Amino acid sequence: MSNHLVIMAGGVGSRFWPMSRPENPKQFIDVLGVGRTLLQLTVDRFGSAFAPEHIWIVTSAAYLSKVREQLPNVPVENILLEPCMRNTAPCIGYVAWKIRKKYPDATLVVSPADHFVVDQQEFRRCISMGLDFVKGTSRVLTLGMKPSRPDTGYGYIQSGLQVDGSDILQVKAFREKPNYETAVTYYKDASYNWNAGIFMWDAATAEAALRQFEPEMAAIFDKINDSFYSANEQSVVNELFPNCNKISIDYAVMERLAGKSITLNGKESGVFVLPADFGWSDLGTWGSLYVQTPKDSAQNAIIGANNVSVIESSDCIVRASGDIKMVLQGLEGYIVADDNGTLLVCKKDQEQRIKEFSASLDK
Amino acid sequence: MSNHLVIMAGGVGSRFWPMSRPENPKQFIDVLGVGRTLLQLTVDRFGSAFAPEHIWIVTSAAYLSKVREQLPNVPVENILLEPCMRNTAPCIGYVAWKIRKKYPDATLVVSPADHFVVDQQEFRRCISMGLDFVKGTSRVLTLGMKPSRPDTGYGYIQSGLQVDGSDILQVKAFREKPNYETAVTYYKDASYNWNAGIFMWDAATAEAALRQFEPEMAAIFDKINDSFYSANEQSVVNELFPNCNKISIDYAVMERLAGKSITLNGKESGVFVLPADFGWSDLGTWGSLYVQTPKDSAQNAIIGANNVSVIESSDCIVRASGDIKMVLQGLEGYIVADDNGTLLVCKKDQEQRIKEFSASLDK
Repeated sequence: MSNHLVIMAGGVGSRFWPMSRPENPKQFIDVLGVGRTLLQLTVDRFGSAFAPEHIWIVTSAAYLSKVREQLPNVPVENILLEPCMRNTAPCIGYVAWKIRKKYPDATLVVSPADHFVVDQQEFRRCISMGLDFVKGTSRVLTLGMKPSRPDTGYGYIQSGLQVDGSDILQVKAFREKPNYETAVTYYKDASYNWNAGIFMWDAATAEAALRQFEPEMAAIFDKINDSFYSANEQSVVNELFPNCNKISIDYAVMERLAGKSITLNGKESGVFVLPADFGWSDLGTWGSLYVQTPKDSAQNAIIGANNVSVIESSDCIVRASGDIKMVLQGLEGYIVADDNGTLLVCKKDQEQRIKEFSASLDK
Repeated sequence: MSNHLVIMAGGVGSRFWPMSRPENPKQFIDVLGVGRTLLQLTVDRFGSAFAPEHIWIVTSAAYLSKVREQLPNVPVENILLEPCMRNTAPCIGYVAWKIRKKYPDATLVVSPADHFVVDQQEFRRCISMGLDFVKGTSRVLTLGMKPSRPDTGYGYIQSGLQVDGSDILQVKAFREKPNYETAVTYYKDASYNWNAGIFMWDAATAEAALRQFEPEMAAIFDKINDSFYSANEQSVVNELFPNCNKISIDYAVMERLAGKSITLNGKESGVFVLPADFGWSDLGTWGSLYVQTPKDSAQNAIIGANNVSVIESSDCIVRASGDIKMVLQGLEGYIVADDNGTLLVCKKDQEQRIKEFSASLDK
């Protein structure tokens, strides 16, 4: 029996433009200005619970050198390169099949590479509890974050009955990102938690679930299976992986398992949630980064900047790259972000339009 | 009899930070984004009226290579290097003494290096008329700019009686930068014009005037005189020039000559003004640059920028250097200026504090 950490690190991070760009997305950046990238912080967060050879990174070929540089202890054969983006279900299928071939009894924690956690001790306690809960079963355990506001940017997990003698509950349903009115309802109802995208299950459960719900995808990984750990793994993956449906693990598996009575590998399956409160953010937006960053007396969050002078400004988030010097005066509620010759200044409440803003340069 | 153009190009341009900096002040920059620096535009403006060997540049040693690069036709011996800044009277003393040694009958146009003129044909007509007016006399002729607003950033020239048969008037007095109330009074009174700092006189008049009003300074240039056009000119200048008083030509000469009956070189002297209206700005501030720059439909002036996208912004002046890309959203009435890794964003109406802003980086 072995525990494995799977980190999904293939995103392009377009909502953090210009700091995060396809050639250097946020998981590879010291977004918080603490001297470690989000990917490094993600691995750090799990402490010593996982040996380096039990840590797996799924990313795209373009980022291989970044992963090797930032995580030198992770063996290169543990870095899986997707030839194209097919959302999270094929990503998890690939890594689950590959791990299971070598470690048939593996239990997996699957985690995004770009989240932020305040209380790491509590985080590790939850992970440890979760691994124990799923190991050797066909269960899936998700972490549910206690909402601190009626956020419309997260999906929600609706919980049902408690599992006897534990802090874990059955999942009744997954709810997509709500409108504000619905978010307020969820926020007031203790049975709703944010879906952090962190979950645990045995590799065998992952494989069985995809075989059940996405048989065509499972057939693709069955074909690839022979090549794992061989010299031609990458070329076989490059040929066959693109045939996978573009579908998230939530749609492909979680929502189909939740609230149902389904048997996988001859054991009763089910999706469960461990409500947790360790201070979490997906750092998905400048706004969420602003929330997580220390602020000066005028509520300006200034990140990674030695040469920034902020005068008569408030409620701004400022991110300066390299040696750039900035003097900012008279700004209220702005994002000011520079990255190697590209500058964004925009109202903080307009950040959902950042894709439009970055595209406006190409006209 | 020969006409000479003297361009004072020693300023450090601190009010245009960060575009203009001591190591690269505004006269050496393509401030208007037209492909020519202000110094080059200044020379261009005089057309073919002055042969290259009759063009003289007074600047500091630090800028020699910039002047040579930007004005390759001007002979290197015509580039005078002040070892330190002593304001305009010593600057003009130096060049007047030196020119007069070689060209005893020289008539000089003295011009700053960093101004802007719209109607160059009218400008040249005024210069030509002015040169004819002073040549062979002891007169000084200044150009008075017709005020287009009650500006508090310029000095004013108060004119008196008209010179028979000409557009030229006697100068009654020079008035320093007024407060707003006084500026309004001046603006309503046709006898007041802006002092553009452009004036004409014979080199002999310049020498006689300094001899009269600043005898110690004149004595210094008399001492330097032997070394002009010799190999040790610069070392003598470096030794003696710093002994000059720090004083402007306005204080040293103009104000003392205006409205008085004084004889220089045995001829009646006097300061005169030619009121002119050729569209002039000293480009002394971001605000004056804003006025002179074409604007988009939202009144944004965007200078020298191929990669700037301005969204829902108005009344801004934007200056981007090199290959920087900028997206600006939701800014009203701001200066956004980048120069090789230094960025300023500030309210346009706070630009008089730019020195404070730039100094705030050094804290």
